[in-house]
Amino acid sequence: MELSKIKSSLEDGLLSFPITDFNHKGEFNTETYAQRLEWFISHDVSSVFVAGGTGEFFSLSATEYEQIVNISAKTVAERVPVISSVGRSTSEAIAFAKIAEKAGINALLLFPPYLTECPQDGVFEYAKTIIQNTSLPVIYYNRGNGVLSAEYIKKLADVCPNFIGLKDGTGNMQDLNDTIKTVGKRLSYIGGVPTAEIIAEAYLSIGVNTYSSAAFNFVPELANKFYKSLRAGDKATVEEITKSFYIPLVRLRGKKNGYAVSLIKAGAKIIGKSAGDVRPPLTMPTDGEVEELRQLIEQNK
Amino acid sequence: MELSKIKSSLEDGLLSFPITDFNHKGEFNTETYAQRLEWFISHDVSSVFVAGGTGEFFSLSATEYEQIVNISAKTVAERVPVISSVGRSTSEAIAFAKIAEKAGINALLLFPPYLTECPQDGVFEYAKTIIQNTSLPVIYYNRGNGVLSAEYIKKLADVCPNFIGLKDGTGNMQDLNDTIKTVGKRLSYIGGVPTAEIIAEAYLSIGVNTYSSAAFNFVPELANKFYKSLRAGDKATVEEITKSFYIPLVRLRGKKNGYAVSLIKAGAKIIGKSAGDVRPPLTMPTDGEVEELRQLIEQNK
Amino acid sequence: MELSKIKSSLEDGLLSFPITDFNHKGEFNTETYAQRLEWFISHDVSSVFVAGGTGEFFSLSATEYEQIVNISAKTVAERVPVISSVGRSTSEAIAFAKIAEKAGINALLLFPPYLTECPQDGVFEYAKTIIQNTSLPVIYYNRGNGVLSAEYIKKLADVCPNFIGLKDGTGNMQDLNDTIKTVGKRLSYIGGVPTAEIIAEAYLSIGVNTYSSAAFNFVPELANKFYKSLRAGDKATVEEITKSFYIPLVRLRGKKNGYAVSLIKAGAKIIGKSAGDVRPPLTMPTDGEVEELRQLIEQNK
Amino acid sequence: MELSKIKSSLEDGLLSFPITDFNHKGEFNTETYAQRLEWFISHDVSSVFVAGGTGEFFSLSATEYEQIVNISAKTVAERVPVISSVGRSTSEAIAFAKIAEKAGINALLLFPPYLTECPQDGVFEYAKTIIQNTSLPVIYYNRGNGVLSAEYIKKLADVCPNFIGLKDGTGNMQDLNDTIKTVGKRLSYIGGVPTAEIIAEAYLSIGVNTYSSAAFNFVPELANKFYKSLRAGDKATVEEITKSFYIPLVRLRGKKNGYAVSLIKAGAKIIGKSAGDVRPPLTMPTDGEVEELRQLIEQNK
Repeated sequence: MELSKIKSSLEDGLLSFPITDFNHKGEFNTETYAQRLEWFISHDVSSVFVAGGTGEFFSLSATEYEQIVNISAKTVAERVPVISSVGRSTSEAIAFAKIAEKAGINALLLFPPYLTECPQDGVFEYAKTIIQNTSLPVIYYNRGNGVLSAEYIKKLADVCPNFIGLKDGTGNMQDLNDTIKTVGKRLSYIGGVPTAEIIAEAYLSIGVNTYSSAAFNFVPELANKFYKSLRAGDKATVEEITKSFYIPLVRLRGKKNGYAVSLIKAGAKIIGKSAGDVRPPLTMPTDGEVEELRQLIEQNK
Repeated sequence: MELSKIKSSLEDGLLSFPITDFNHKGEFNTETYAQRLEWFISHDVSSVFVAGGTGEFFSLSATEYEQIVNISAKTVAERVPVISSVGRSTSEAIAFAKIAEKAGINALLLFPPYLTECPQDGVFEYAKTIIQNTSLPVIYYNRGNGVLSAEYIKKLADVCPNFIGLKDGTGNMQDLNDTIKTVGKRLSYIGGVPTAEIIAEAYLSIGVNTYSSAAFNFVPELANKFYKSLRAGDKATVEEITKSFYIPLVRLRGKKNGYAVSLIKAGAKIIGKSAGDVRPPLTMPTDGEVEELRQLIEQNK
Repeated sequence: MELSKIKSSLEDGLLSFPITDFNHKGEFNTETYAQRLEWFISHDVSSVFVAGGTGEFFSLSATEYEQIVNISAKTVAERVPVISSVGRSTSEAIAFAKIAEKAGINALLLFPPYLTECPQDGVFEYAKTIIQNTSLPVIYYNRGNGVLSAEYIKKLADVCPNFIGLKDGTGNMQDLNDTIKTVGKRLSYIGGVPTAEIIAEAYLSIGVNTYSSAAFNFVPELANKFYKSLRAGDKATVEEITKSFYIPLVRLRGKKNGYAVSLIKAGAKIIGKSAGDVRPPLTMPTDGEVEELRQLIEQNK
Repeated sequence: MELSKIKSSLEDGLLSFPITDFNHKGEFNTETYAQRLEWFISHDVSSVFVAGGTGEFFSLSATEYEQIVNISAKTVAERVPVISSVGRSTSEAIAFAKIAEKAGINALLLFPPYLTECPQDGVFEYAKTIIQNTSLPVIYYNRGNGVLSAEYIKKLADVCPNFIGLKDGTGNMQDLNDTIKTVGKRLSYIGGVPTAEIIAEAYLSIGVNTYSSAAFNFVPELANKFYKSLRAGDKATVEEITKSFYIPLVRLRGKKNGYAVSLIKAGAKIIGKSAGDVRPPLTMPTDGEVEELRQLIEQNK
């Protein structure tokens, strides 16, 4: 796929992050996953990020990853770009990248290293090594122990032509603004905090036109309406949906670590599009919380 | 002063935060402080916040506070609203409020309690008690150990008619957006992170029209130009000044705790408007850093 | 009082921290406070820290402080050292110190500055200035925004002869061990995390022989028994009391910010020695929590 | 190997954590690694933890891991227990465990999950699933996003007979003491903060008899002398070595994220036992820091 098509899909449109389907044994379910992707594409999405955070990348085996990228590339079939995650360690990330490339994935989302505290120049080397070992375009996910400063993001952009985008996972507007003003149009910028819609206006104000929409998994029309209203400058609708849906969702999410993903799987079940339960170390919401979510969905129909 | 005038000054215009003048013995210098206020007013400011964070409120004695609010009210003489800080403990805050009220101050900026960890409902009681014990309008400074959630801000607005504004000291866009969308126009909102210009666009996008400008103390024209460009939607100028001035300033500020204030006093010295040195627990920048700041000012003339 | 007597009281014995008595209007109650002090002394305490963290120092006015130190010095009457807190800002701390000195207080406990982020050398100046402006011996409370490194503690000990002790408020064993091994016997060391008994063994292992006992306010015999068992190396009793009392207390305390103090006032009420309620920004425990505390006290009689 | 032998090795003796040998291409070097293990065993170690944090577990591929556990089991040949790490995700951890078991490893050290925020009950499920899917005894490494409370550690001990030990990676004495007093002798406890010797006395005081010694890689005699002095109650020697060696080492380590590992590889080079450089996201110390380390080693000969 042409780079310009990938870039423009990242800079304008709804970026969708499908949850990963597990069957009742907790194994990856190719069939329902393919159906989910079709359903995603049937709505207006600019790109599909598979095996992302919402897709429990952190819990997938290499075998499952291969199944996911294969079925994704095959199902989406170049209609929109498909981006898959890589990370964990330099060698594993490179191995994941090879699997993705072979499957026909269009770009990669690079996650931070596993566990260890690490310095700026070390994270830079980690990212550089991985990006230089793939021919695919790469988006770096600035998050957790792998957060890079504006200066290192710039350096990475200077030495890696296929480093094309930055996904922010921090919500730190000061540092993000520094980065964007310093690095400029060389990169595409994506908002990537949990339930990113809650700060979408702030993101947009500094040049982050798109964001990861996890809620799209269970309220696709609403997620789309929100995005379009945001971009059209329809502040009244943005405010209305924020108040009626995203604020209650964010407050529910705040009840337990990991609910940024768990609630999405619960929502998918509620609308009859179950992808099974989350895997440990995540846990599904309680019955009471599921009921709260059900009412929230109901009220926003 | 009419409340409507105070409210409109908070919602539109440059909010200025003068540093506090100390002489060579470290004592408050009324004379140069009065001159500073005149100089402030001679530029286009919508209000003056005296004895604020930039004014080292945390280091002032009650006697000095009284001198400051007296000279401020007298000097500004209702040309624009003068707001002074209160805080530390419930009883001290009430005492400060009485001093301010007697001096003719127009509104108060309420700081968080001293030191102790405290729960949401306790901070709410702290703020409520103080606000209910003054007839002046009060802005709450959401910061440090006293950060209130959207729900408690709303509750405070419901029970205290003279609670008129929220100054954000967190930079947490998620919670601030929740608060603004939940509480709405009942309050005025002010951006109050250190060097707030660095996230001014994000603030504005969710309805925070104004912010505390500390840099105004040494680059008043630039600070004004930035604010006017921001409000006029002149993104090019905002970007240019952010890149040429605010990003380098923020990076310099990041070198040491407390430099958000120390660099301002250094800047005032550089332009020949010295207010003396900061008091402990703050420290003045090194010669090298002062030189860096001097060049930054020079390049932005 | 001779310095050697003060020093030895800090290094061996139960350091007691009385809560501050407020009447039903929330005003300081001299009479019941004096009775409380007598009751404290009647048990085996090596010293009394008045207007400390447990005594809500952060919520006291200067007038109340004066009343507290006066009644304390008069009541205790040199039977054991009385130490009172100072802090907030350099000038206020010096003013508090003068009041304490005039009242006949034997030593001071210096708290960190109000609110502001501050650098190591700035905190050092803050502490040095205050310590050099009093003739009383001073203990520095290493806590919150005022935590000093081993190197700065050493420097402070070098320049201030009347700096006699360090109270740890961090629980950071690495830095505390560095400090103690670096500074050595020049200072006395006191454990000062909330419910300090929970890490008393660890403190003792690196030379911190004493700690602040807040629970002494409502279980004085148990608090004494714990301390004596600890110092006698009676590990079985230490373990037993930790399991039956301090672990449940710490878990209850973890339920809400500020409960390190609130639960102590609740406990005092339960045993019929009420000092009234905590002031904002603290809040009293719920009925359910008070009942839990009551049972805990009952089970440990 | 009998469980009792493994348990006693964990509760008494120096636990050694060899760095992982990489050649000049950055590939695992079996030969020099085997020599390193022999050299380790030739000193008095109670057990060998291979592919641990110091061994850059986070940067190893599955293939390298297999090589490491194979050569380790073969080289050590049951002279002392060999423990290898597992982690990242449930499925990967189980896969690593199978490799280790097949190689003849004696026990496992379970690391926290990759990246994601997770709740207590989710981490519990993660650990339980992995522990129940191996026949080897497992030590849980309480660290990072996978820190379990006393209650969940107890629950895990109740349901998993082959859960035999807890390695603390937090240095949080309050919670660790709660855990140890709550769970008791059912588990063995290991101190596992970086440069654990710096808090070894505190650990020992609450029943943590052993700790991970990374410095053993380049100062084995000193590390052994420290451990023996600690256990013998020779406080003077413990203090002396802490002051002359561990405090300077810890301060040097504090200069950059990841130096807890990087300095160990630098130390190994200095003494002529190079294992090559650390992999990204870690970085080697600067020349100046290496020189500082060299002098520190020299002074402690």
